[in-house]
Amino acid sequence: MSTLVIGMVQQTCSPEREPTVARTLAGIREAATRGAGLVVLQELHTGPYFCQTEESGRFDLAETIPGPSTELFGSIARELAIVIVTSLFERRAPGLCHNTAVVIERDGSIAGLYRKMHIPDDPGYYEKFYFTPGDLGFTPVKTSVGTLGVLVCWDQWYPEAARLMALAGAELLIYPTAIGWDPADAADEQERQLDAWLTIQRSHAIANGTPVISVNRVGFEAAPDGTGGQLFWGNSFAAGAQGEILVRGSSDKEEVLVVEIDRQRTDTVRRIWPFLRDRRIDAYGDLVKRYRD
Amino acid sequence: MSTLVIGMVQQTCSPEREPTVARTLAGIREAATRGAGLVVLQELHTGPYFCQTEESGRFDLAETIPGPSTELFGSIARELAIVIVTSLFERRAPGLCHNTAVVIERDGSIAGLYRKMHIPDDPGYYEKFYFTPGDLGFTPVKTSVGTLGVLVCWDQWYPEAARLMALAGAELLIYPTAIGWDPADAADEQERQLDAWLTIQRSHAIANGTPVISVNRVGFEAAPDGTGGQLFWGNSFAAGAQGEILVRGSSDKEEVLVVEIDRQRTDTVRRIWPFLRDRRIDAYGDLVKRYRD
Repeated sequence: MSTLVIGMVQQTCSPEREPTVARTLAGIREAATRGAGLVVLQELHTGPYFCQTEESGRFDLAETIPGPSTELFGSIARELAIVIVTSLFERRAPGLCHNTAVVIERDGSIAGLYRKMHIPDDPGYYEKFYFTPGDLGFTPVKTSVGTLGVLVCWDQWYPEAARLMALAGAELLIYPTAIGWDPADAADEQERQLDAWLTIQRSHAIANGTPVISVNRVGFEAAPDGTGGQLFWGNSFAAGAQGEILVRGSSDKEEVLVVEIDRQRTDTVRRIWPFLRDRRIDAYGDLVKRYRD
Repeated sequence: MSTLVIGMVQQTCSPEREPTVARTLAGIREAATRGAGLVVLQELHTGPYFCQTEESGRFDLAETIPGPSTELFGSIARELAIVIVTSLFERRAPGLCHNTAVVIERDGSIAGLYRKMHIPDDPGYYEKFYFTPGDLGFTPVKTSVGTLGVLVCWDQWYPEAARLMALAGAELLIYPTAIGWDPADAADEQERQLDAWLTIQRSHAIANGTPVISVNRVGFEAAPDGTGGQLFWGNSFAAGAQGEILVRGSSDKEEVLVVEIDRQRTDTVRRIWPFLRDRRIDAYGDLVKRYRD
């Protein structure tokens, strides 16, 4: 099969889990109806982005894997016979939680996990409080629709992560994400941020000759402490193996995007842009240093 | 000094050295008149792009460093009291040549060399025949206008190269380059290639919070063997520390571009995007592997 149809569910998240998940399930069904064999959900899609503040009570939101969400999404994956990439707040042990993408096979089983490796900590994104950095490395997940290089949000700024996934055979780079504007920022700063976010992810497609799927949260979520909030900017997109945009969502609407990926193009593009051939691995050793001083 | 004015000379190359170099010198003078303290020249700017075919006679074009070109450009650097980044065909020993960028100080002395590390070999770009891969590593050059992360052309496709320069303290990433379209390619393919070239270089600015200066050749050069030729696409550009385009040249004209860089912005941008803080150096070891199989 040389093409793969991929669905992307860009949505808002209500304070309650039930209506949020109901919209996710509706989006998955719509994507499957439109032919998707793989559906990607956004980061931490079962509820509001709780990392806007540090509150120990929020650890109640974490769940085990397997657990309620993998059961639920496993059940719809099996029903529709599709692969689903979910993004969950994983409770691994008391006081040990991860930001974890779970890849669910078309038979409902868990194909594999990716635990977010790069953890941000910025005003409004206090993830270092909640998430232990991943310990599974940059390891793609093998599925019936291909080898998936699943990464999460902040990882998208790191060329190292994309490269390691590609070197391990990833056929697609996949980013569930939750990023937005600080509404207090000036319009030109907001524009630079969105453009940078698109550009860095498209660059991973280019550097590796590998399509990129990025699914981002949309809508305003007020900070619980009344200090403001985040306007998640949507713009979920798919890029082809040369980094070209294939489909791109709006910045303000819930949307189910569906894109067809030509799986042969990675080979074609790598023949004209054989970047993997010429890497100077003899001179890359210092990439494992914090700084070269 | 918190700003640096940079000149970029985008030009065509005549079959003869003299008129080619005369236009380069005129461009350098214009840039200096417009306030540039640093002028960047395009890749192998002293003549036509000779790598379109493999001909052993072309090794006659190589010159020693120091040699005639470093004398010439050193003399104008001293006269105008500016730093210049040149790009030369270096003859290091019989049968041992490099594609070398030479950074010349404002007093005319050689501040340092960068020998192109990633060497392409594609139809029309037979560089592996001419150039021994660089053995100086990814080492920035310290100058009176800052620490310059000089890379060359094909290096621009490698995030590893940009990262290593940034980790070694490069304040600017600089790419003398010579890239163009195969006129036989379809318009949409040509558009994807140019867009990918802009995108991957802008991504190095974003990933590292470091401005990028890319100076590219312009104009059609027929292949000596009559098999076609390359339409060098110009589009020399400067991007700021968030990857935003500050200035961009045309695809078909000789131009001297001048841009002002705010040197404080790297620090400002790295405070809001602290990517260097969160690199997972414990998990990057496989970047020195050819493939993770």
